[in-house]
Amino acid sequence: MKRVAVAGASGYAGGELLRVLSKHPEFEVTTVTGHSSAGSSLLSQQPHLRSLAHLTLQPTTATVLSNHDVVFCALPHGASGALTAELKNVELVVDCGADHRLLKAGDWADYYGGAFCEPWAYGVPELTLATGGKQRERLRQATKIAAPGCNASTVALSLAPGVQAGLIETTDMVSALAVAPSGAGKAPKVEFLAAEMLGSATPYAVGGSHRHIPEILQALAGADPTVPAAAHADPQMQYSSGYGTLSFTPMLVPMSRGILATSTARLRPGVTLEDVRAAWENSYAAEPFVRVLPHGVQPRTADTVGSNCLLLGVTVDNRAQRVVVTAALDNLVKGTAGAAVQCANIACGLPETLGLETDGVAP
Amino acid sequence: MKRVAVAGASGYAGGELLRVLSKHPEFEVTTVTGHSSAGSSLLSQQPHLRSLAHLTLQPTTATVLSNHDVVFCALPHGASGALTAELKNVELVVDCGADHRLLKAGDWADYYGGAFCEPWAYGVPELTLATGGKQRERLRQATKIAAPGCNASTVALSLAPGVQAGLIETTDMVSALAVAPSGAGKAPKVEFLAAEMLGSATPYAVGGSHRHIPEILQALAGADPTVPAAAHADPQMQYSSGYGTLSFTPMLVPMSRGILATSTARLRPGVTLEDVRAAWENSYAAEPFVRVLPHGVQPRTADTVGSNCLLLGVTVDNRAQRVVVTAALDNLVKGTAGAAVQCANIACGLPETLGLETDGVAP
Amino acid sequence: MKRVAVAGASGYAGGELLRVLSKHPEFEVTTVTGHSSAGSSLLSQQPHLRSLAHLTLQPTTATVLSNHDVVFCALPHGASGALTAELKNVELVVDCGADHRLLKAGDWADYYGGAFCEPWAYGVPELTLATGGKQRERLRQATKIAAPGCNASTVALSLAPGVQAGLIETTDMVSALAVAPSGAGKAPKVEFLAAEMLGSATPYAVGGSHRHIPEILQALAGADPTVPAAAHADPQMQYSSGYGTLSFTPMLVPMSRGILATSTARLRPGVTLEDVRAAWENSYAAEPFVRVLPHGVQPRTADTVGSNCLLLGVTVDNRAQRVVVTAALDNLVKGTAGAAVQCANIACGLPETLGLETDGVAP
Amino acid sequence: MKRVAVAGASGYAGGELLRVLSKHPEFEVTTVTGHSSAGSSLLSQQPHLRSLAHLTLQPTTATVLSNHDVVFCALPHGASGALTAELKNVELVVDCGADHRLLKAGDWADYYGGAFCEPWAYGVPELTLATGGKQRERLRQATKIAAPGCNASTVALSLAPGVQAGLIETTDMVSALAVAPSGAGKAPKVEFLAAEMLGSATPYAVGGSHRHIPEILQALAGADPTVPAAAHADPQMQYSSGYGTLSFTPMLVPMSRGILATSTARLRPGVTLEDVRAAWENSYAAEPFVRVLPHGVQPRTADTVGSNCLLLGVTVDNRAQRVVVTAALDNLVKGTAGAAVQCANIACGLPETLGLETDGVAP
Repeated sequence: MKRVAVAGASGYAGGELLRVLSKHPEFEVTTVTGHSSAGSSLLSQQPHLRSLAHLTLQPTTATVLSNHDVVFCALPHGASGALTAELKNVELVVDCGADHRLLKAGDWADYYGGAFCEPWAYGVPELTLATGGKQRERLRQATKIAAPGCNASTVALSLAPGVQAGLIETTDMVSALAVAPSGAGKAPKVEFLAAEMLGSATPYAVGGSHRHIPEILQALAGADPTVPAAAHADPQMQYSSGYGTLSFTPMLVPMSRGILATSTARLRPGVTLEDVRAAWENSYAAEPFVRVLPHGVQPRTADTVGSNCLLLGVTVDNRAQRVVVTAALDNLVKGTAGAAVQCANIACGLPETLGLETDGVAP
Repeated sequence: MKRVAVAGASGYAGGELLRVLSKHPEFEVTTVTGHSSAGSSLLSQQPHLRSLAHLTLQPTTATVLSNHDVVFCALPHGASGALTAELKNVELVVDCGADHRLLKAGDWADYYGGAFCEPWAYGVPELTLATGGKQRERLRQATKIAAPGCNASTVALSLAPGVQAGLIETTDMVSALAVAPSGAGKAPKVEFLAAEMLGSATPYAVGGSHRHIPEILQALAGADPTVPAAAHADPQMQYSSGYGTLSFTPMLVPMSRGILATSTARLRPGVTLEDVRAAWENSYAAEPFVRVLPHGVQPRTADTVGSNCLLLGVTVDNRAQRVVVTAALDNLVKGTAGAAVQCANIACGLPETLGLETDGVAP
Repeated sequence: MKRVAVAGASGYAGGELLRVLSKHPEFEVTTVTGHSSAGSSLLSQQPHLRSLAHLTLQPTTATVLSNHDVVFCALPHGASGALTAELKNVELVVDCGADHRLLKAGDWADYYGGAFCEPWAYGVPELTLATGGKQRERLRQATKIAAPGCNASTVALSLAPGVQAGLIETTDMVSALAVAPSGAGKAPKVEFLAAEMLGSATPYAVGGSHRHIPEILQALAGADPTVPAAAHADPQMQYSSGYGTLSFTPMLVPMSRGILATSTARLRPGVTLEDVRAAWENSYAAEPFVRVLPHGVQPRTADTVGSNCLLLGVTVDNRAQRVVVTAALDNLVKGTAGAAVQCANIACGLPETLGLETDGVAP
Repeated sequence: MKRVAVAGASGYAGGELLRVLSKHPEFEVTTVTGHSSAGSSLLSQQPHLRSLAHLTLQPTTATVLSNHDVVFCALPHGASGALTAELKNVELVVDCGADHRLLKAGDWADYYGGAFCEPWAYGVPELTLATGGKQRERLRQATKIAAPGCNASTVALSLAPGVQAGLIETTDMVSALAVAPSGAGKAPKVEFLAAEMLGSATPYAVGGSHRHIPEILQALAGADPTVPAAAHADPQMQYSSGYGTLSFTPMLVPMSRGILATSTARLRPGVTLEDVRAAWENSYAAEPFVRVLPHGVQPRTADTVGSNCLLLGVTVDNRAQRVVVTAALDNLVKGTAGAAVQCANIACGLPETLGLETDGVAP
């Protein structure tokens, strides 16, 4: 049994880490920390986590978080870089924030700003690599893991098989997503009030400003056999956005959890539906948590609530000559906390699926 | 005061026609018809329409519908073609179904099937024409009008200014929409149950099969100065889809009304944000019901509920070199019933805005 | 045309006042005020109110609000008492806050606290009085009107006919309400975030602490022929809660607008369903905005969205020997802004229904 | 490992049984049956149950269901009585329908009609009995168990401690509930369409006609030390409704899962808040799935989604002299499938909590 601490335990990502970890047979949460909530009972902040009613929030400091087997961080970006550098006697750190995701300092400067932190092992095990292998291999001995952005992993996993197989034009990718407001966090703002969002849909970060764009492009670059390996390795290379182009637009819709992403790209000449189905199906055939649905069946976010599954619909629009990939997942599980635990399983040498659900809570 | 009949008054489109018409100072609803609901009181089918509590549903027949100044049809596609041909002593017919929207028999055969009906004046007054004029002109003397599909007018109005101004590549258009289930009608099906849809998002008609695609493409072809006029006029020309390509994916989301469409297309070389803003703003500057929001402001469907307004966000993604247009409207008002009444106002020589709201019911 | 000012125009009640007033043929909104929003355009705060796009928010001061025919206040309780006392050259003030609703200083001290303000004419025209008349009479010459609490008018109108007719035990009234979060206002708080409320229901102000309780009881006392008239008139009498007992529990549910109230009381011996139906039907037979539905038909909040109607279901539970009244209205319209405008119509000698809708925006 | 069959596996209750059972370490689902869905894959009917993708629906017959250790039935009422009588070689049958819940033939005739079936052990382990013991004891050796109605167990558990302790008047109980439409099942009907229910609340079964009323009253009678034991045992006694009176009104609200019940009853003279808190806290102190929240904290349905917990808020309204109990649970888990599995654990001699969650999926 590994002793686990969760930093940022009063927010949505932290709460979901705890919900998943509380059912895990090999991880025991012994420490939870918060910022303004420090000193209060966990149950007062996360009233749904009755199995962890015995825990009290401590302050988020390196001292409190040190001396655990595994530390999960669910902090605002910019907060985990300095903190995790000071941890002592910790085998594995998994950061659910953005600080260690980006490979290139230029991307960080363009989309986030502030001090650039070193990139950690990227936490999408199923991500197809240019070699045909999977990102999973890079996680096996990792001691520092950057869990992915929820939209980023959704879109990267939607398109990577086509990039790796050379079936799609990477200069012409478009994603639009229906997303839940829990992805925006627990800080109270007028635009996220229930009265504002119930019965309404609205886009945000329109026109290429969303921070998950460079994360997606670097993931797809890593899947592309035509990109020289050196391009990924060199953090001095300034822009992921030198790779491909992605139009990316999230639309907030009134559901508490879930991402439904529609991603499309122009097919290369002569590519058929059969080619497309084969590439995606082969890429994910052995994956426990990424499922390509039968042709003609579409994913629903409801079917993934509480589960670590990503469901994919894959087809071709023959008139538009584009692949269309629809993807549904739970932004807090496979999009964040479930991915983090899955990666920790891998890094700790445990069965990858341990403690993770494949069944959603539906209807 | 014109005497008005509404056919199909027990469904969602019919109900919304009645809601709008009941507030209209020059139209008086004297006749409502239904199919299985014939004989029942209107209020039993549409309990929100208290101002029309005196009406009883009659059967949907040419006899019942004849002898009115204006007849609005809200019937399943395939039902209005034969029926409206038999109407006697009716000045104006506005069909909210699809029967008279498509210009080309080939498109009808590909997307609907069954007998092709003659195209009627297309009911999107604000639609930019290749000449720089507006579709409104063609509605002034019309006696037969085909109200548009709700998704079709949303996307056509989103992209037409760019097509007319030659700013975008029409071979590379992509639209993804978050849509309300009221667009799917009132027939009970498991997949449209509240228990299924609450908290969930799911796409449908993925991969180019949605019936609004040819309607959008023919509208955009009509806006394109490079398309010969003869191409529109000749119904023997088989395919709208000979014009441009559009990837179109609707995603059902849990709101009762509303469409939020994100439409994007590659910019032609050298086109700037200023070019784009000018084209859209100029095209809609004088429109009472289509508003281009200030740059940086995004539309919300909630702000259009019950109103006849289409709100547009227009920007450019410089990295992806694409225009991104976000559009919000109420699928039942500007998407259907409001558009129908707006067109009837024009055809009857009334002020175009008569009886129509610009303010939404929000929050 | 009367010149109208709205104070507190950036909130939900203020926005709804403006939405209703913008369609009113005899009221013209010339001034809108806000607190932190002063100086910004109205449209930036209320993007759904396109017809009032020309207005700019001014500070909420007596100087700004003076010199209008009618002033509507939509301010937090405690704010309107002092402000409205300073208004000059104003014919009519309608306060949508609580400051002038309660008749008894003791009730104010118990439920609100702070300085007690004089009670104004209570803005529920349809409220049955002990005499068998209606509250409407007291509004005809009013220059100061206190618009009701949304839950209060819903429950008072649900039970008053039975109280007036002596059919129910007033010592045993119970109301439970499903209510929308827009009733809680626009101030951002974690518990009102969409992520918290979507898919969830939770009660608040449980156990008799809700501030609308004394307002309901004083309204019902006013309907009870057995209560001496002097009891109402004397503000020194400390407690409305000396009259009857009401258990009152609101439950927040995930809808943007609406109140559905279930109110029940024990029947006096020998009272039949026919007695009950007759009392309620007779009381509201002539009311344009309060409708008793046919026996067996239940009200839906959706049918009242945007309308000024209160829909009532009235029946008897013979085994439990209780009347059960179900009531649906739009908390922002009939619950607040519509009621305020209706009362202003009465006080100004205009037709009571002017500018107000009876049809809801459904589905 | 016990071999388990689930009858009615394509509906909501059946699907939830499977979701819970799929995680259970001692139950293995080997057989699933359906009616019109027989022959199709389980995944086509329940796309969220990926862990059971290997199962195919068989017809619902006694032959198919015989020869299992445990059979769970999730069938419409009236269907399980005859079917379960024919089962051979089955150790335990748990019926989630109503057929075996009611003790009195008169209640069945009044609220359901058709053939009256013998009552089985009632599946609410935590239900307080008149003796001060719990219903759990009656389940230990049971071979036939009737899982409770979701509203019934919610209200019975809300009030039973007060009945057992003699603190409340049972002649004056009132419950109003905000309930999710998944409780109404998967049969498509217009009134349960998402377009109808989104943004709306509406009551049903108003005025004492809801079928859970006699079930609640017989449960409370069983908790009342003043009711002679013989009264429960004798099925010839016609009416549970001879015991107490309950006004019961469910209100459908737009959430996919959950029941929030507000139950209130007049306190007996002299009963204090302390008496009330002590009675409820003592009754449930040792219960793993029924939790009395600290005074002042209110339950939210979101906190129970997917979990087997019932959360209770318990307080006293001193002015109204009533106890007010608020209760939240997941209608499909603790309300149906979780309760069924909990009872099966007890009957099979397994740990009562085996395979059941206490943590909800929130937000």
